[in-house]
Amino acid sequence: MITGKASVLEQFKAPLQLRQYPIPAKPEPGAALVRTIMAGICGTDVHLWKGELPITLPVILGHETVGRIEQLGEGLEKDWTGQPLKVGDRVTWTSSTSCGECYYCREKHQPTRCAQRRAYGIGYRCDQAPYFLGGYAEYHYLKPRVNIFKIADDLPTEAVVGAGCALNTAIHGVERTGIAWRDNVVVQGAGPVGIAALAVAKSAGAGQVIVLGAPKHRLEMAKRFGADHVIDIDEVKTPADRIAAVRALTGGYGADVVLECVGSPTAVGEGMEMCRDGGKYLVLGHYCDAGPVSWNPHVVTRKQLTVIGSWSYEPRHLRMALEFMRTTQQQFPFAEMVSHRFTLDQANEALATTASWKAAKSVLVPG
Amino acid sequence: MITGKASVLEQFKAPLQLRQYPIPAKPEPGAALVRTIMAGICGTDVHLWKGELPITLPVILGHETVGRIEQLGEGLEKDWTGQPLKVGDRVTWTSSTSCGECYYCREKHQPTRCAQRRAYGIGYRCDQAPYFLGGYAEYHYLKPRVNIFKIADDLPTEAVVGAGCALNTAIHGVERTGIAWRDNVVVQGAGPVGIAALAVAKSAGAGQVIVLGAPKHRLEMAKRFGADHVIDIDEVKTPADRIAAVRALTGGYGADVVLECVGSPTAVGEGMEMCRDGGKYLVLGHYCDAGPVSWNPHVVTRKQLTVIGSWSYEPRHLRMALEFMRTTQQQFPFAEMVSHRFTLDQANEALATTASWKAAKSVLVPG
Amino acid sequence: MITGKASVLEQFKAPLQLRQYPIPAKPEPGAALVRTIMAGICGTDVHLWKGELPITLPVILGHETVGRIEQLGEGLEKDWTGQPLKVGDRVTWTSSTSCGECYYCREKHQPTRCAQRRAYGIGYRCDQAPYFLGGYAEYHYLKPRVNIFKIADDLPTEAVVGAGCALNTAIHGVERTGIAWRDNVVVQGAGPVGIAALAVAKSAGAGQVIVLGAPKHRLEMAKRFGADHVIDIDEVKTPADRIAAVRALTGGYGADVVLECVGSPTAVGEGMEMCRDGGKYLVLGHYCDAGPVSWNPHVVTRKQLTVIGSWSYEPRHLRMALEFMRTTQQQFPFAEMVSHRFTLDQANEALATTASWKAAKSVLVPG
Amino acid sequence: MITGKASVLEQFKAPLQLRQYPIPAKPEPGAALVRTIMAGICGTDVHLWKGELPITLPVILGHETVGRIEQLGEGLEKDWTGQPLKVGDRVTWTSSTSCGECYYCREKHQPTRCAQRRAYGIGYRCDQAPYFLGGYAEYHYLKPRVNIFKIADDLPTEAVVGAGCALNTAIHGVERTGIAWRDNVVVQGAGPVGIAALAVAKSAGAGQVIVLGAPKHRLEMAKRFGADHVIDIDEVKTPADRIAAVRALTGGYGADVVLECVGSPTAVGEGMEMCRDGGKYLVLGHYCDAGPVSWNPHVVTRKQLTVIGSWSYEPRHLRMALEFMRTTQQQFPFAEMVSHRFTLDQANEALATTASWKAAKSVLVPG
Repeated sequence: MITGKASVLEQFKAPLQLRQYPIPAKPEPGAALVRTIMAGICGTDVHLWKGELPITLPVILGHETVGRIEQLGEGLEKDWTGQPLKVGDRVTWTSSTSCGECYYCREKHQPTRCAQRRAYGIGYRCDQAPYFLGGYAEYHYLKPRVNIFKIADDLPTEAVVGAGCALNTAIHGVERTGIAWRDNVVVQGAGPVGIAALAVAKSAGAGQVIVLGAPKHRLEMAKRFGADHVIDIDEVKTPADRIAAVRALTGGYGADVVLECVGSPTAVGEGMEMCRDGGKYLVLGHYCDAGPVSWNPHVVTRKQLTVIGSWSYEPRHLRMALEFMRTTQQQFPFAEMVSHRFTLDQANEALATTASWKAAKSVLVPG
Repeated sequence: MITGKASVLEQFKAPLQLRQYPIPAKPEPGAALVRTIMAGICGTDVHLWKGELPITLPVILGHETVGRIEQLGEGLEKDWTGQPLKVGDRVTWTSSTSCGECYYCREKHQPTRCAQRRAYGIGYRCDQAPYFLGGYAEYHYLKPRVNIFKIADDLPTEAVVGAGCALNTAIHGVERTGIAWRDNVVVQGAGPVGIAALAVAKSAGAGQVIVLGAPKHRLEMAKRFGADHVIDIDEVKTPADRIAAVRALTGGYGADVVLECVGSPTAVGEGMEMCRDGGKYLVLGHYCDAGPVSWNPHVVTRKQLTVIGSWSYEPRHLRMALEFMRTTQQQFPFAEMVSHRFTLDQANEALATTASWKAAKSVLVPG
Repeated sequence: MITGKASVLEQFKAPLQLRQYPIPAKPEPGAALVRTIMAGICGTDVHLWKGELPITLPVILGHETVGRIEQLGEGLEKDWTGQPLKVGDRVTWTSSTSCGECYYCREKHQPTRCAQRRAYGIGYRCDQAPYFLGGYAEYHYLKPRVNIFKIADDLPTEAVVGAGCALNTAIHGVERTGIAWRDNVVVQGAGPVGIAALAVAKSAGAGQVIVLGAPKHRLEMAKRFGADHVIDIDEVKTPADRIAAVRALTGGYGADVVLECVGSPTAVGEGMEMCRDGGKYLVLGHYCDAGPVSWNPHVVTRKQLTVIGSWSYEPRHLRMALEFMRTTQQQFPFAEMVSHRFTLDQANEALATTASWKAAKSVLVPG
Repeated sequence: MITGKASVLEQFKAPLQLRQYPIPAKPEPGAALVRTIMAGICGTDVHLWKGELPITLPVILGHETVGRIEQLGEGLEKDWTGQPLKVGDRVTWTSSTSCGECYYCREKHQPTRCAQRRAYGIGYRCDQAPYFLGGYAEYHYLKPRVNIFKIADDLPTEAVVGAGCALNTAIHGVERTGIAWRDNVVVQGAGPVGIAALAVAKSAGAGQVIVLGAPKHRLEMAKRFGADHVIDIDEVKTPADRIAAVRALTGGYGADVVLECVGSPTAVGEGMEMCRDGGKYLVLGHYCDAGPVSWNPHVVTRKQLTVIGSWSYEPRHLRMALEFMRTTQQQFPFAEMVSHRFTLDQANEALATTASWKAAKSVLVPG
């Protein structure tokens, strides 16, 4: 029996443990075994580690992964787009798979709200076969019906992991929101989701894009990705001042579209005031439940706002993300997001770097 | 100098006073003088009387009025739709007029957010000429650029005042929200706005419409207007039970569209949970600022909601309202909404009846 | 070996032949065998019989069918909506099934344009197992992945077959077009598609609906389904006069939305002139290729039209159709559409009745 | 009496004549007198000169003009955006003004279809006061209610005239059409409208943009404006080959959006085949009536297309155009479009240069 290593979350807020699990002899029909090339550390992983989401341990974290196909199960011959798949191909995949048959999948076109979805690196225990269902490991098992995407040769692994789930999520969110040509856009937050939202907004027709965030290295990254203005929240410290700063940049009215990429409930009230009347507000950063906040619904009526939520992403968003990154590498250098690399046994250090906001993006390179 | 009577709000929370003001000898060019036939008592008037909105006294309340043209200023020859206007015509009008020239009017198609808008019955002092700028009076002066609508002979005055600003506002709100064919719709609230939203939803393609509210006479009115189900909030007393009741009627998922027509901030969190995932939530009832509430923005992300605000109405919504009522009187008997009639010197009693929720709709008949 | 009867198209424009085929012993996994209760004769069947569409003979016609489940293949336990399926259930199904995996299914949300679609009653030869792949027969075989819908007890078979594919197609077409609340709508054509489009338009928010068509019995049916006005093309004989008649009913401007349900190319130019400027025109009736026509594209620019095409329907449209018919039987009596009934050996007579426009809807009752 | 020179179309297909007209002593209230800085020669001017549109002579052509304010009528104190206007300001304006009061202006939000519109340089005779109502002249009179725009100091006159009405029209057309993020877009035509549509598409979220046209200098301009691919119609000579070329660049499916900027009726059938199924087709180039063509409406149904028309532009599109050009001069160098300059007495030569497709853009510089 051949085994592989994995870094395992066994207890919340305790160090991840390096474990060995048996590698499946042969994937089921429709499944695949992949050797991990690179796994991203997502901010959500920090929340999971702290126990802020309801998951069952032990779990191998990691839902932003690129690997190389080791074995293909019977009948798995093509990737999601119809390209042939073979051993040795460099691939990525959606972390969750919708059932395709339920009310949300079939009738309402809301597959991200399918009740059958479970995410690699979040929703699967690793103490039972096939064990390898998260990115922080030497191998990754891909269950039948997974959405696999072959990565084009001219798209670096660093770009795919650097963009991570943030880009797919931002594409979905901006799609739901709609940016009209030359709209003024505000992005609240300069983390991976904020940078991705900036890239999508800039390429989706926005006029000027204003990014609010911190620390400095992230705002510099925002400028590198084409932000027209950045507002450092360490310098402009009050919501009132930040709202005033946005209005000053938007003719006194506020932005046509504000994209919340922060995850802090207080950002929501502040962000709505950054919208012009009749504007749109995307609540994108609240994947985790960060609790309630005092908020006045009158603002939605009075300002005639449209407030949009968006959850996770569909396979076609990952498809778009890969093609987008491939064709716009000069303008949106997602590969440069990968600022810190760690080996598998440095997973705790990697997680800590992400938690402390020191990294643009930390990654694990198991090999 | 000929004078006319008006019921005047001179001090918040104090009885309205019956006063006499001089009638303008001759309207300015583009203006008109109208003799009041009937004036509606809106729920907003109660808020105004309590001093809950920032207005300057003294004011003649009343922004839902039907009158007969007494005099026409020079150049005022047609109504908003292009029909000829003459002395003796029965007319109504929008309570506010947008400037047509500002950023919101011109560039962003949000004329209800025009900064120049001031509403008859709310935003004009009555201690200076032309005095008569509210409905609780024998006369009403219509300033130049007002949007006047001639009322068709087969549409009763009671329908126009019974529908009041509620119908126009509901038309605007539902237009912004969008109801897909056969959508399940929930209406929170069975007051005038709720009844109007019900009528618009039923006629706009909704499948079943569920109305939540109280007291009994309002729910009976909701049934009369075609509600498929009513939920009495005096009987189903907790939010959790009401959410469960809505889900039981919608296949366990919640409604496609929920229309908030209550104005209470706590209704908002409750209503969002009545939406299916990917559903839409219209915040329509929060014309007044009823203060903040504890609310969790995570729900918008997780349920992938779209939350829409809508403020007041445009002239074309009043145009649609009049034609809608005229052609659907059997199905939507807005004239029957007028449940209590008062003379001008009974204005305080009229206001109290509305405040106590005893009336479907109270009206003043000055003549 | 048990056999069943079928009426077979063996040669274009020649009489259908009654044939016997062996009934499959046991359906494959995911498949089902159904005993035909009623099969609709669609106008498209007449075109198929004439050889106007590229199909391979022999074929059992019939793509609008209701049957009772005789046998269920392994694993087929639920209908499309998730309801349990068992032998004896009365069901209907989509005539085509999309692959769910191609570019149009996955990336572009255009599953009706999936290249894998083949329709029962049109695209399958009947001289090889499982033979029974059309409605004009005692049995119908449902292949794996077919979209089956259990029919509610309170919805008569006549309604389902009477509405036929016309209703599903109209639902799809009107969905793509969009009818705004109180829009004036014109329906060109009073055949099954026209009547269905009328029902959908009336229930989707239209103000007045005007139907153009012939002969008289169809216009009477249109009135029964709520047409506000009908224009008899046998009486108003020129396009210019019909355009004038529509304008006279729409304030001189033309309709907001015109739904073409005729299939004649000359109707298209006429119909576009029935639109108001900025209006919408749905080309719904051109499922068959009726050849080119002289047409001026300048009209699209000058009138600022939106012209929409819609092809066939998705399973969710059939889902909506069944629920719609069930809850609106008083208002839209689709069961009454079934005007002529025939046995299986009268199939040629049935087809002739449809071809001659004598029937609202002809059906076969094999049993 | 002071006079000014104008180049006048007195007889179709005959040379323009240089004439002198008296300059108005003082503009009416709300009007202005402008000294022409530069006037564009539009392709439409060639059609007008040939007598292909129904206009009344004599006319001063020219509807794309930049001038300097000489005199302001009483009450004209601000430009359309609210900026103060004063003598000496460099300005441009919409060639037509909608009434703001009719059915199309008020009820249907289609102001470009207002029946009151008449265009400078097209719809006004010049043999009566105020004479100067076209661009080919030393002066231009701006009637009351005209939509004037002050031009920012950092936006060259060449850009405004080089873009001309083509850019405003393209902005309107693409707005009506809608380009989704990363859509593949085809532009049929590389004249001023095609180049403008390319710029708008590229900046509105398109993935790759393919331009078809000729001659070479225009395709080079298309590349300069960011075309990902150009197809020379002088080299790829048949519609079938051009359709095949577009499909080869779009995965075999055709483009998501095709923008017709040619004006030839045969281009329409060809362009629809360049759309993927479910795609969108904008008929933008058919401002003039170039007559009918043989066309099969079945293609709209079968391919499930949306075909959109767009007529002229609204003031807000000119507003957007000016801001767009100002902020994207590096990427979209509209000033470089001005390839040929002529004086007023060379107007015939200027017109001939445009007619022969030798110019990217010809302009008159009266001064």
